[in-house]
Parts: sequence; C-alpha cells; structure tokens
Amino acid sequence: MDKGKTDHIVSAYDQELAELSSMILRMGGLAEAQLASAIKAITTRDGELAERVVAADAKVDALEAEVDEHATRMLALRQPMAVDLRAIVAGLKLSADLERIADYAKNIAKRSLALNQNPTLPAVHAVPRIGGLAQRMISDVLDAYARRDVPMAIEVWHRDEDVDQLYNSLFRELLTYMMEDARTITSGTHLMFVAKNIERVGDLATNMAETIYFLIEGKTLEERRPKGDDTSSYAGPDQG
Amino acid sequence: MDKGKTDHIVSAYDQELAELSSMILRMGGLAEAQLASAIKAITTRDGELAERVVAADAKVDALEAEVDEHATRMLALRQPMAVDLRAIVAGLKLSADLERIADYAKNIAKRSLALNQNPTLPAVHAVPRIGGLAQRMISDVLDAYARRDVPMAIEVWHRDEDVDQLYNSLFRELLTYMMEDARTITSGTHLMFVAKNIERVGDLATNMAETIYFLIEGKTLEERRPKGDDTSSYAGPDQG
Repeated sequence: MDKGKTDHIVSAYDQELAELSSMILRMGGLAEAQLASAIKAITTRDGELAERVVAADAKVDALEAEVDEHATRMLALRQPMAVDLRAIVAGLKLSADLERIADYAKNIAKRSLALNQNPTLPAVHAVPRIGGLAQRMISDVLDAYARRDVPMAIEVWHRDEDVDQLYNSLFRELLTYMMEDARTITSGTHLMFVAKNIERVGDLATNMAETIYFLIEGKTLEERRPKGDDTSSYAGPDQG
Repeated sequence: MDKGKTDHIVSAYDQELAELSSMILRMGGLAEAQLASAIKAITTRDGELAERVVAADAKVDALEAEVDEHATRMLALRQPMAVDLRAIVAGLKLSADLERIADYAKNIAKRSLALNQNPTLPAVHAVPRIGGLAQRMISDVLDAYARRDVPMAIEVWHRDEDVDQLYNSLFRELLTYMMEDARTITSGTHLMFVAKNIERVGDLATNMAETIYFLIEGKTLEERRPKGDDTSSYAGPDQG
C-alpha cells in the first residue's frame, strides 16, 4: 500500500472532521452572543440592539444549513465508523440545538421590544441572573466539545437544575405582581415567556452535554436528567 | 457477480429502510395520540388521562432512542448515497421533532392538572379548535411521509398559518380575561402556555413537512416559512 497516499487520505478526512468542529464552535459562539445581546436588550431597553439580534438570526440558520450539508457530504463520501460516525451525527444534533438556542434569543429580543412599551417591572432584574446562568452553560458546553472534556460536559449537565430553580421562583414572582396590579399583566406575561425561553436554552445546553458525552464515550449518560420546571403543575396562591 | 447474493443484500437494505419508516410512523402515531389525549384531558378535566399522558412520554423517548440507534447503525454498515442517505438523515430529524411534539403534549397534560384546581375559563373552548388543527397537521404530515407525497407535505406546510392565527387570537382573549379579573390570572397563564405549546407543535409539523420535502426532492422548500406568532411584539391593549 502506498503509505504516502493513505496519510494524505486520512489527513484530508481529519481536516473535514476538524472543519465540522470549527463550524459548530463558530455557530455556538454566535448563538451565545445572540443570547447575551437579547438579555442586554431587555435590561438596557435597547431597541436597536434587539433589532440587530432579530436580524442576525438568519446567520445562525445559514450556518446550520452549512453544517447539515458538510455532515451529509461526509456521510456520503467517507464511510465513517465508530467515533468518526458519532462525531458527524453529534454535529447534526449540536447544530440543531444551537439553531434553537438562537431562535429563543431572537424571541427574547422581540419580546424586549414589546416590554419597552410599558414601564419596567422590578422582576426584570432576575432576567440577567437566569440568563447569565444559561449563557455560561452554552459557553462551557462548547468548551467541553472543543476539548472533548467529559467531566465538564457532566458538570454542565447538572447545572440545568439551577436554571430551573431560578425560573420557578421568577415565575411565581411574576404571577404575584400580575395579581396585585392588572397593569403589569402584559409585561408580566412577556417576562414569563422570556424566562421560559431561557429555561429552554438551559435544557438545550443539557441536551448538548448529553450529545457530547455520547460522542466521546460511545454510550448515553445513564443518570436521569433532573426535570426542573415545576410551574406547569403550579395551581397558584389562590389555592388552599 | 453473484446476482442472487446482490439481490439478497439489496433487499435486506430496503428492509432496513422500510423498518426506519415504520419506526417513525409508529412514533408519530403515538405522538399524535399523546397530543389528542392531552387536549381531551383539558376539555374534560380528566386528571387520570393527564397522568397517563405524562407516563406514556417515556415510550416516545424510547422509540426515539431506537430510531437513532437504527439510523446510526445503517450509516455505519451500509454506505448510503443520495436518496437513501437523505432517508436516514431525515429519519433522525423526524424522530427528534416527534419527540419534541410528545414533550409538548406531556407539558399540556401537566398543565391540565393545574387547570383542574381552578374554575374553568371560557377561553378553554378554543383549545380543542387550535389543538385539532395541530393534530391534523401531524396526522397529514405522517401520511405525506408514508406515501412520499410532496403536494401533501407542501399543503401541511402552509397550514401552519391557521394555527398561528388561532394562537394569536386566543392569546389576546386570555390577556383580556386576566386584566378584567385577577382570579383568572393563574389559569390564564397556564392556558397561554398550553396555546404556545400547541403553536410550537404546528411549527414542528411544518419542520417535518420541510424535512419530507427535502427527503423526496433533494432540495429545500424555497419559499419562506410564514412566521405567525406575533404575540411576542404585542404591547397590549393598555397601549395607545
């Protein structure tokens, strides 16, 4: 066998896999920035920033399409096995999750525009706290992916509980405001959806941690994921 | 070449592809039934039915894991090209979407339990209407998949607008109730999230229609998807 040629083939293949990782990381950086900007648009009531977030979502969508195409081409042209196959399938899943994260950021930005039309609710101060947690989950899960770092992926996976706890307390706080003063209902509702969007970003970062674990270890994270949103069964303070 | 052997290989391969379709359709049937039951649990205030929906979600998750495994094995063992490769990648996407649909059904079922603890709001009557639309989208998109029916996939894709319109009007109706009577705020909030979950089911059925189109045609649905949730920019009737 022509050793030189084999090396050449292997290295082109490795390069394609590295390119897939780079695309995911670039997409992840963008999704993380979108979330950060959307949250900033809420706290600073910056409508222009919100508009920029809404407009930039198309870039994330385009990157997802690129990842899909690149991954599908690799599946067709290389006959990937074992860890390489997992890396490609993981790439498809991670890019789908990142696209959804950016979509939630866009929705938060849109709601910030509506929030700007009403007075600020005090509860808005909880948004950067819960948003910051979710943002760090994305950032760290991307690091775990870049370094193929299993302990870090597991650590991020556990952090979803903190986001869920903050979400639950913010939800209750908003409900209380809305009951006390009907003028806060519209803004309160928007903030509830903002909080829910952030809570879902946390879920998606958790999904990504599971995908990364599977990519590296070749088996699923066995532990059951803690389910944190208990507001769906919250009957409200008007109950006995 | 041993023709008999080739036939044998091809037919095993086709059988694996058919099995993938069957798994997706079974999963789809279950997700559709879960949504129907969740909506029925809301209108009939049937707590036991809601509990059954919550419990049955694990079955959908298990089916998704099976699809993932089956599809990944096919990618590894066969070297699928063109339409076969698209069928496998589409299978992965469709099962992810169906898993999310079932997840929304579970969330609706959970919220029905909370709704049962407060008096019924009149707006609840809109839930089976919007829910029925979303359910028929799932049902028809699965038919389009089973029959590889492009016009039907496109038709479902367009129907997302109807769901979005109903969602927007229900959202406004709920907001009005909540402002008029603070005792309706808790239930109103839960119904808003129920409506939002159904609206997202419509989005997912639309996603599925796009995936099916791509699977059959080998190119993306060019038309821009109509974006229908405009409640995120709704400043409320308290605005001038």
